[in-house]
Amino acid sequence: MKELTVATERREQLVDITSQVDSEVGSSGVTEGTCHVYTPHTTCGVTVNEGADPAVQHDLLQHLDELVPRSGVWQHAEGNSDSHIKSVLVGPSVTVPVVGGRLRLGRWQAVFLCEFDGPRQRSVWVQVA
Amino acid sequence: MKELTVATERREQLVDITSQVDSEVGSSGVTEGTCHVYTPHTTCGVTVNEGADPAVQHDLLQHLDELVPRSGVWQHAEGNSDSHIKSVLVGPSVTVPVVGGRLRLGRWQAVFLCEFDGPRQRSVWVQVA
Amino acid sequence: MKELTVATERREQLVDITSQVDSEVGSSGVTEGTCHVYTPHTTCGVTVNEGADPAVQHDLLQHLDELVPRSGVWQHAEGNSDSHIKSVLVGPSVTVPVVGGRLRLGRWQAVFLCEFDGPRQRSVWVQVA
Repeated sequence: MKELTVATERREQLVDITSQVDSEVGSSGVTEGTCHVYTPHTTCGVTVNEGADPAVQHDLLQHLDELVPRSGVWQHAEGNSDSHIKSVLVGPSVTVPVVGGRLRLGRWQAVFLCEFDGPRQRSVWVQVA
Repeated sequence: MKELTVATERREQLVDITSQVDSEVGSSGVTEGTCHVYTPHTTCGVTVNEGADPAVQHDLLQHLDELVPRSGVWQHAEGNSDSHIKSVLVGPSVTVPVVGGRLRLGRWQAVFLCEFDGPRQRSVWVQVA
Repeated sequence: MKELTVATERREQLVDITSQVDSEVGSSGVTEGTCHVYTPHTTCGVTVNEGADPAVQHDLLQHLDELVPRSGVWQHAEGNSDSHIKSVLVGPSVTVPVVGGRLRLGRWQAVFLCEFDGPRQRSVWVQVA
């Protein structure tokens, strides 16, 4: 298992980590299999979606804010219940195929760390098998 | 890795791909393990849920439309921001147990390709290990 | 594959199953790899999120109820369309790293069965590889 470190810059942000993950796939020596990309935090997530047009990332974050507003009648006292809920909706990990010793994504796909309670330094664990 | 092709017929549709996936499991020769079902697109997803009553699929698609309406103040100019967002909420893949050389689903479960921007021809990648 | 049985006590409830899952990891003999935690039902899900403060679980369940109300104009006649939809949003399984023969979770993470149509007896399938 390898650990990536990602420094986020805003409370909510999608960070494209495709090249770092792909680099770990390359150095793993695995030629065909899967790559598991997992974040050990509870207020961020990992997903795969369009990497070409940043407007998609903007629309996703904006709409998640509408679905799960930061302010609300929350029991959890840290002011980040929305971050926990968004993290559950997005999920803590993705599994991506590995072919020819590289991540095998679709043409428009990228792997994103989804920050919902930044800015922070985040860890991402990568396993290739 | 094997590739399935799924032709969808509407903008939003759930397509039951259980038998095609199970067929790939059968021909893989793997008797116990997992099957990873992944779509390389950014406006559709893959999930597991009830396959018996089509009304469940109807209610799911209708409610996702209410949560993420097609029309909105979107930055992304292609008119399918809702499709991207729904795809992130559903996720690009599922991992299903394999036992006795077959997919091991629950009694009411089926594997679905979730089309959110069709009709299109979609790819689904199946890996058994 | 090992099967856990979880008895839920309310219609909607998060049940922390970390110790049962970790116990299966320990008895599997696998020291480094992944653990796949899968539920074969269509009205509950599995997730990983904060296990320390029960208020997070409360806020998550309450907000999912707001996003997907139990009462609505549903075609599915069993009165649990909301449960199916929540299950799709949360997902039927998680994959968690295994290191040193134990589940390798983040400091605040726990594995939860997410009951959306209880109380019932639920199965959870655990695979370690």
